Amino acid sequence: VVFRTETEFVRWLRIKTRGQARGLRLGIGDDAAIVALSRGRDLLLKADMSIDGVHFTARLHPPRAVGHRALARSLSDIAAMGGTPRFALVSLALWRGTSREWIESFFRAMVALGRRFGVAVIGGDTAVLPGRTMIDVVVAGEVPRGKALLRSGARPGNLLFVSGRLGLSALGLRLLKSRPGRWRGDASRAIRAHLYPEPRCELGRFLLEKGLASALIDLSDGLSTDLGHLCQASGVGARVWADCIPLPDALNTRHPGRVRSLALALHGGEDYELLFAVPPRLASRIPGRFQGVPLHHIGEVSGSREVVLVETNGSEQPLRPGGYDHFRRLYLSGEIGRK
Amino acid sequence: VVFRTETEFVRWLRIKTRGQARGLRLGIGDDAAIVALSRGRDLLLKADMSIDGVHFTARLHPPRAVGHRALARSLSDIAAMGGTPRFALVSLALWRGTSREWIESFFRAMVALGRRFGVAVIGGDTAVLPGRTMIDVVVAGEVPRGKALLRSGARPGNLLFVSGRLGLSALGLRLLKSRPGRWRGDASRAIRAHLYPEPRCELGRFLLEKGLASALIDLSDGLSTDLGHLCQASGVGARVWADCIPLPDALNTRHPGRVRSLALALHGGEDYELLFAVPPRLASRIPGRFQGVPLHHIGEVSGSREVVLVETNGSEQPLRPGGYDHFRRLYLSGEIGRK
Repeated sequence: VVFRTETEFVRWLRIKTRGQARGLRLGIGDDAAIVALSRGRDLLLKADMSIDGVHFTARLHPPRAVGHRALARSLSDIAAMGGTPRFALVSLALWRGTSREWIESFFRAMVALGRRFGVAVIGGDTAVLPGRTMIDVVVAGEVPRGKALLRSGARPGNLLFVSGRLGLSALGLRLLKSRPGRWRGDASRAIRAHLYPEPRCELGRFLLEKGLASALIDLSDGLSTDLGHLCQASGVGARVWADCIPLPDALNTRHPGRVRSLALALHGGEDYELLFAVPPRLASRIPGRFQGVPLHHIGEVSGSREVVLVETNGSEQPLRPGGYDHFRRLYLSGEIGRK
Repeated sequence: VVFRTETEFVRWLRIKTRGQARGLRLGIGDDAAIVALSRGRDLLLKADMSIDGVHFTARLHPPRAVGHRALARSLSDIAAMGGTPRFALVSLALWRGTSREWIESFFRAMVALGRRFGVAVIGGDTAVLPGRTMIDVVVAGEVPRGKALLRSGARPGNLLFVSGRLGLSALGLRLLKSRPGRWRGDASRAIRAHLYPEPRCELGRFLLEKGLASALIDLSDGLSTDLGHLCQASGVGARVWADCIPLPDALNTRHPGRVRSLALALHGGEDYELLFAVPPRLASRIPGRFQGVPLHHIGEVSGSREVVLVETNGSEQPLRPGGYDHFRRLYLSGEIGRK
């Protein structure tokens, strides 16, 4: 670490994060940051950790990607409430061999992503230590009072939609691991999706403002796991049609990794797409694309409490959570190498 | 870790943190927590990390103390703005050998401290890993709009006050390290002050509501360091009288550790007392005690930009920051063993 003192680091960070943040009264440098919320809004708060060896590895993920992804996780959570992210606090426990360049790239990427979404980095904490690098990002957002889109509103008969294509991030990680180097075309798109995921904040807000979704969640742990969360919170089940799950182009054909494509789409995490339930009478108002991102109808909510996958031949099988669980410490699917 | 799944852990935590939290619309379990702020208030946000081997050591600090201290740090920051803490998010990267008892004691202590101050734990993140345990606590508080007490308001001629007695926490840590076991009297009080510090939220709010302080900061890094922060933010200097610095009783007499007492009071961190500047015309309105805690006049703000310590014999010497700096990675004073 090439900052000589914490004061020097804070001064650098204060300059780096400076800018016009709506509602920011006092940023980095005092005992706490001070912000003003808009009238008639509820405050959303979400924390997400990113840990070297768990959520990223220094070998595969450049500092720019680490900074981008650490913030994107939390922005996606705010999107999943239909909210607008406003402010971020970044706590950083740095491995003591970290270079100043790493820290600068990390924050530059984070600040750049924040700016695109109107989010200012307004505080945090820092420590330097022998162990692994850990990042905790807390985002504060806002939502019209009483209007947040929860996981718990899905009802039997609702239609299930997802944004984007699923499994792209998991494929990107697999490609990164299998053969470092320069990638092109589909492979390069998958790697970009993994390193620089795009939170769907505008889509979340669109669903809220138009009153189209009865329940909403983001796909951070994988469709099988997050659909399970949504169903459990709503006290319902679901039927998902295997043929309707939008696979990335790279997974529709042969590709270097020969990944079982549907497994990646079902269980691969970190896509940060949105999964939402729509009452049937509103389904026609869901566009085929929103701001260039495809929206696909993948299934329906049922009253049975079971989550099932309907195969091409019509057979049904239970769709069990196959994502990551920190307490189990393994990928149930065995498909992805995230430790 | 004896929770089998993250879902099981979250369910346990949700029950443990349940309670009447004013303004809480949705707690743990969805994509983000939802809270409502009071009208006419600004939002305060502060993050503080607590890391095994840096801010505590598993050998010396029982889980109850780790949980208490991790939250107390952030509550103290809200106190240092004259604000009222409301909500906390707790991100926890757990060493994978951690027992369920440790986690339960940790959260019980944190939730208990929070309840005393009207603060609800409403979210966070968890990971289990081979490395050291790390905690990041973010507290959201509120303050009457535009009224927060900053570090930057001190003016030449203002009087400097501190609450409580300084160096007690550092003494407690030293005693804990030197000889584990059962302590009595002064020594036991010092250890309690170290393990279970009391944030001065009511005092901060009193100073704000009565309009008594021109600048306010909490003593987390030690008087020498934090007074330096206050002076730098205000563009002023200060003169502090060595004889007026309130030492704990244990430091006024001989005690087992034979610690140089003034050095501990000047440079020992983690007292979480408040340091504040008061315009001379308001000084008579500062009580000698506030809710049982003594308030002492220890010096004055000067226009010189220098921070000096005035010794008993009238000689002056520069008072340089002697607290902890994560980027320097050492205690400048060499007095305290926090790594």
